[in-house]
Amino acid sequence: MVDGADTAAYQWRPGDLRVMKRALDLARKGSGYTSPNPMVGAVIVKNGRVIGEGWHRRAGDMHAEIEAIRGATEDVEGAAIYVTLEPCCHFGRTPPCTKALIEAGIKHVFYASSERPRGTKGEGHLELEAAGIEVRRGPMEEEARHLNRAFFHVLAENRPYVIAKYCMSLDGRIATYTGASRWITGDAARLETHYLRAQCDALLIGAGTAIADDPELTVRFPDYRKVQPLRVVLDSRGRVPLKARLFRQEIPGKTVVATTNAMDPFHRSELVSNGVEVWTVPPTAEGEISLKPLLEKLMNHDVLSLMVEGGAITLGSFFAEDLINEVWAFVGARLIGGNQAPGPIGARGVAKLENAPRLDVFSTQKLQDDILIQAKVQKETGEV
Amino acid sequence: MVDGADTAAYQWRPGDLRVMKRALDLARKGSGYTSPNPMVGAVIVKNGRVIGEGWHRRAGDMHAEIEAIRGATEDVEGAAIYVTLEPCCHFGRTPPCTKALIEAGIKHVFYASSERPRGTKGEGHLELEAAGIEVRRGPMEEEARHLNRAFFHVLAENRPYVIAKYCMSLDGRIATYTGASRWITGDAARLETHYLRAQCDALLIGAGTAIADDPELTVRFPDYRKVQPLRVVLDSRGRVPLKARLFRQEIPGKTVVATTNAMDPFHRSELVSNGVEVWTVPPTAEGEISLKPLLEKLMNHDVLSLMVEGGAITLGSFFAEDLINEVWAFVGARLIGGNQAPGPIGARGVAKLENAPRLDVFSTQKLQDDILIQAKVQKETGEV
Repeated sequence: MVDGADTAAYQWRPGDLRVMKRALDLARKGSGYTSPNPMVGAVIVKNGRVIGEGWHRRAGDMHAEIEAIRGATEDVEGAAIYVTLEPCCHFGRTPPCTKALIEAGIKHVFYASSERPRGTKGEGHLELEAAGIEVRRGPMEEEARHLNRAFFHVLAENRPYVIAKYCMSLDGRIATYTGASRWITGDAARLETHYLRAQCDALLIGAGTAIADDPELTVRFPDYRKVQPLRVVLDSRGRVPLKARLFRQEIPGKTVVATTNAMDPFHRSELVSNGVEVWTVPPTAEGEISLKPLLEKLMNHDVLSLMVEGGAITLGSFFAEDLINEVWAFVGARLIGGNQAPGPIGARGVAKLENAPRLDVFSTQKLQDDILIQAKVQKETGEV
Repeated sequence: MVDGADTAAYQWRPGDLRVMKRALDLARKGSGYTSPNPMVGAVIVKNGRVIGEGWHRRAGDMHAEIEAIRGATEDVEGAAIYVTLEPCCHFGRTPPCTKALIEAGIKHVFYASSERPRGTKGEGHLELEAAGIEVRRGPMEEEARHLNRAFFHVLAENRPYVIAKYCMSLDGRIATYTGASRWITGDAARLETHYLRAQCDALLIGAGTAIADDPELTVRFPDYRKVQPLRVVLDSRGRVPLKARLFRQEIPGKTVVATTNAMDPFHRSELVSNGVEVWTVPPTAEGEISLKPLLEKLMNHDVLSLMVEGGAITLGSFFAEDLINEVWAFVGARLIGGNQAPGPIGARGVAKLENAPRLDVFSTQKLQDDILIQAKVQKETGEV
């Protein structure tokens, strides 16, 4: 079933790339809305002209292909569809897209990425081919996989895609030796954080950061109209006070406290009566939150992507269990210095450099005086 | 004597900018050769055509203006000269350029930067005007000042321009908690280090780094033909063993050990007989090398720019005395983690963020998987 050979042999034309790029741009409009589904975009082309476009707007809504067919400005019979993900052939919340494509008389299906391992044909592919439709994977498979990397990660690993986010000085400190950390970066970097939060399904901090910084952990920018990402605070012993901003009933969205049986029952009931969800998670040997069971629970709450915003102890715990998939590092235009000034990732760290995870830096951007570096952790195995 | 107004009023034409950019490119050819002089480039234009070019090749050689006049392809009478630094009017190792320009019949002098404070006319300016020559400062003053920032810094502060260079992981560590640091960055970054060393007059490390890494501290790339930068190691007590690579007689260039009276006299004489210079510098209260007297001594040895390559203790000492002027940070595509893994700048660091020096990032470049960030430390006062 390996189709690497025929795909490689096919010469994509510049027009194909332009149309697929448009489909990816459409897919991206779903960012932050579609979990647990992937983002998908579709463009229908007939006689060299675009006659239909669609994207998956949110879980439960129409799939991109269906939206493109229904909104087409002329009959799609004989047309080509460019779609960023292989059309589904199973009944989920909506009927299979393959059936709709066959019924509509689509004659060519070009898809960028597939839920199947690289080089194998999915069932959607086979079903379409059996109906006499030309089907090809590519172009822009890497771009499409990057766009839905959290979705593909969950498929392969059964746990959310974890993004470590931190702000540090150019000498790698997240605070001075006295703990001062506001502000290492400037306005543009702080605003960008809100756009990054909006791309994630959940945001997580440790109890220390909740106490020290008392953040609201919400997305705040003028035209934001989505549901807030789920807020999660790790608080094994119930140290975060009830008056913390996170627990205020008037802030939109939902807060979860992940804790252990060590939390005082009165504190727990106060949290619950405040509208906070309290999840009891098995403790580690040291009495901390076990992260893998927590991640599984988050996945079951439709969380594909989780942004961990610190502090160093919390990021150190995720790092120690090799759970960090990506890094969003804001590098502030400052020097702090000091042996005792903390770095972004605490705990023990690696002993040997050959065990230090390698990164693929995929974006570097200047935000006023600061720099945002985004990088994926290279995995020895796995899908992403 | 403020000429800010007339300069601001003058409309530079695109042609002026192109020619001055060419003069700056010529100036840059002297990089690494001209100390203690600045890099200077000059272009002579007559009837809209370039008829002469020159640059200052090394201290003691002709000034750029003279080289441009002597090499001109036609009579420079009535021509305009574009020069990156205000022509000198004093006798140094070579006769004054102002006299040569007047005698050659140059009618217009455009210079990019001046040794004088911004907004004031230097004596060269006045002497040329007195001879009936049109003289204007600008365009591209900032670019010209940036090129010679080490030179201008020494003029203003009477000590070399100090560049802190380090390699750290994306989470700000220069080594693992066990001290492993080879290699955090890749081949391209390590090669770039040699090009950066070649731009500096001296390279400095602490005794700990000399012992742990045993570097040669030379510039090594195929077509390098300059004199090696001066190598300096801080070794207050004479801990660096005689067999260190730095002290080998066969490596080109000169090594200086900066020490105190605490060094064993036998060790000192062994070093000297190995061809190493030993400089005794007053100790601090803690018995370490006093940096300001050392910097003054370096300046007296024609060092305009000093690259400090670590380790954390040494960079921490420079940082504590507010002696770092610029940072060249290589950010390796790795995560290391760990509370005990060192950051690039040790010692105490600042307590409050308002005391954390701000930086102007002027260059960010990708080197294979790694990133080089270059930034100037903003000074409250001073010339750079």
